[in-house]
Amino acid sequence: MTGFVDRQRATQLMQRAGIAALVLSAPEAFHYATGASIGPAGLFRRAGAGFVVVPARQDLPIGVVVADFNATQLRTAAPEMVVRSHPIWIEAAPIETEPAGLPLAERIEAGLASLGRAPDFARPATFDLAGSVRQLQAILADFGLERATLGLDLDFIPAADFAAIQALLPDCPVVDGSLVQDRLRALKSQREIDLLRQGIILSEAGLERLQVDAMAGMRQSDLVALYRQGVATAAAGLSHPVITAEYVTLGARAKGADARAVAGDPLKCDMVCTVGGYASDMSRNFTFGPPSADQAELHAIAERAFDDGLAELVPGNTLAHVHRVATDSLARQGLRSYRRGHFGHGVGQSVFSEQWPFISAGSEVVIEAGMVLAFEIPLYIDGLASFNLEDQFLITPDGPVAMNRLPRRLEVIG
Amino acid sequence: MTGFVDRQRATQLMQRAGIAALVLSAPEAFHYATGASIGPAGLFRRAGAGFVVVPARQDLPIGVVVADFNATQLRTAAPEMVVRSHPIWIEAAPIETEPAGLPLAERIEAGLASLGRAPDFARPATFDLAGSVRQLQAILADFGLERATLGLDLDFIPAADFAAIQALLPDCPVVDGSLVQDRLRALKSQREIDLLRQGIILSEAGLERLQVDAMAGMRQSDLVALYRQGVATAAAGLSHPVITAEYVTLGARAKGADARAVAGDPLKCDMVCTVGGYASDMSRNFTFGPPSADQAELHAIAERAFDDGLAELVPGNTLAHVHRVATDSLARQGLRSYRRGHFGHGVGQSVFSEQWPFISAGSEVVIEAGMVLAFEIPLYIDGLASFNLEDQFLITPDGPVAMNRLPRRLEVIG
Repeated sequence: MTGFVDRQRATQLMQRAGIAALVLSAPEAFHYATGASIGPAGLFRRAGAGFVVVPARQDLPIGVVVADFNATQLRTAAPEMVVRSHPIWIEAAPIETEPAGLPLAERIEAGLASLGRAPDFARPATFDLAGSVRQLQAILADFGLERATLGLDLDFIPAADFAAIQALLPDCPVVDGSLVQDRLRALKSQREIDLLRQGIILSEAGLERLQVDAMAGMRQSDLVALYRQGVATAAAGLSHPVITAEYVTLGARAKGADARAVAGDPLKCDMVCTVGGYASDMSRNFTFGPPSADQAELHAIAERAFDDGLAELVPGNTLAHVHRVATDSLARQGLRSYRRGHFGHGVGQSVFSEQWPFISAGSEVVIEAGMVLAFEIPLYIDGLASFNLEDQFLITPDGPVAMNRLPRRLEVIG
Repeated sequence: MTGFVDRQRATQLMQRAGIAALVLSAPEAFHYATGASIGPAGLFRRAGAGFVVVPARQDLPIGVVVADFNATQLRTAAPEMVVRSHPIWIEAAPIETEPAGLPLAERIEAGLASLGRAPDFARPATFDLAGSVRQLQAILADFGLERATLGLDLDFIPAADFAAIQALLPDCPVVDGSLVQDRLRALKSQREIDLLRQGIILSEAGLERLQVDAMAGMRQSDLVALYRQGVATAAAGLSHPVITAEYVTLGARAKGADARAVAGDPLKCDMVCTVGGYASDMSRNFTFGPPSADQAELHAIAERAFDDGLAELVPGNTLAHVHRVATDSLARQGLRSYRRGHFGHGVGQSVFSEQWPFISAGSEVVIEAGMVLAFEIPLYIDGLASFNLEDQFLITPDGPVAMNRLPRRLEVIG
């Protein structure tokens, strides 16, 4: 499995921004560009655990700096990439089986000797940013980019690390490549679309399980457990790792996780399901027993605003236009002062499930075929209900195609 | 619940570093300093979701900038702090119940009107760094710190955000406060110690469950599920949220998560259990059926190195000394070329369970009473077993006190 980068589009975006290569450091960006994990060093969320060089010149391969602990796996997974490694804190030794009868420690020493390390080889306390940047420099030199303008992900790289990187790369002008990366990642390949659709399929399976088995008297954590069981059952046999995150609100005012559902309680289930690194996002709403008139009316307002906004979620419109239409729809229905910052967002592989671009009042981003967008109408009314109606859409030349199959209505539990 | 900051120690460290206030931005640092969540804006892991100002002058309170969505909760939780808020993308409206009979939308509009917002009130697409920094400036001005040297957590703040912050705070010299913060957080209060001990109690309950119920034929994911069940049972009724992370290796060479355990397989369970934001870290090792002679010998080497290193984990020694003693112990036992970067680390509230200080060759950090350290001897031998023996210790004036109760031996499953 290799990465998800559309090299041709990357080149166009880099040329427009005047940069010769993207250099990515964030763990999620590393996985996006290589299809492989940055490894345990990425857990610190500092720069230098790994780097990915995506040159604008398409005759050059993608270059990767990765921890020695993960290098073999990466070379196998992405044989077309140029891979250089740097040592991290984790030691792993091979063992020689021959000759039999040697003491264990001697067979391990023989295994370590087979690695051909320098006599003074040592490992850093965690990982060494300077050593990692030296490997990055070697790749840039191989590619003839040792004086090129680089676009780094300055929306991720900690300021302390960026200062160190600039000192170590004095010959390369460095600019913020975050927006180029955002634009590159906003259009999805078929494999990315499949992963994002899979997440919705799993989430809907979880919600169907919840709706069938939930009952008054359960705690919020019990409800989440039902959802997770439904996801796990549907995910059995899937080769990608699956991770869920649940943003649940139970009750007219949010209750603690240990409070129990009672008849009449509203329940919002805003569910993120991450498959192979790609986070899908959707939300449905329930009541325990029949909804009150106010609950039913609130959800109906959300449904109408959803329909109105969705009709505009088509290629060529700006996201600001969609935001305006949804805001106007709420106002026409009497909610003239309800001021939501965004009514949805891009989805994909990021540290948070909500990512650029946002369906917001100020976004002049034009909707394009190939985007996958979560569109949502959240109505959080303290003392009545918190509802969020959210679906995930693939934008096609003919308009938005929903990945969800569950009806967009307020459902009754029990 | 208020934060965990030792103001007196913070003052000493800031005076030594020549800074007048720490300004913390990372979600984990925010929780450490306030005892409350930074809220959903923190999920983006950008600067400005919230700020915490810890002045060196102890007559000044702690100042906090937080999302409006989380401000009420924070003001209730920490009434002694100065709290200012900035709007984020999430809208939440109160509802007026009187007069009865009004249409729903009019009651919501009345609730919104009661907030007294400016007519042009709008919410940003996500959150507005500039708006958040303006609130930070107001706090600094209140405190008489508008021209003071500030220590920011530059190990977290993305470079793009740091450039923006510097432009918005032109009168304040800014330095990297990361190391001051690391040193401050390295000594634990009793509440922090209790949370870190609780995590070990839960992890050991999970491992006991795993050892009793595991059997050959199970997949790695089944084994993790047993551990989680044991943790969940032991955590019932606990008021703090509990999150687990499992670093498990099954087999002489790491198997995929779907491969099944067979007789003779080694199993490493390096378990992180996070209670109320504080991540504990420990590891134990097993074999399915009796261990081979090589497996038993490998674990015995780890046990002896553990004992040798632990004897030196006392106040006054440097961490480099402990690293050297553990390395020397392995060498004496024949592993002369095994080069581990660290044999343990601080624990607490951080984005990763391993945090400063590290028990590494280059660390001149002196062990102090009040530190909580995870000490570990990981021996990863590809083709034989990956074992890690790890306990968590409270350092006292009399030496290290283990938080673990499980024996440090290779255990047999089945």
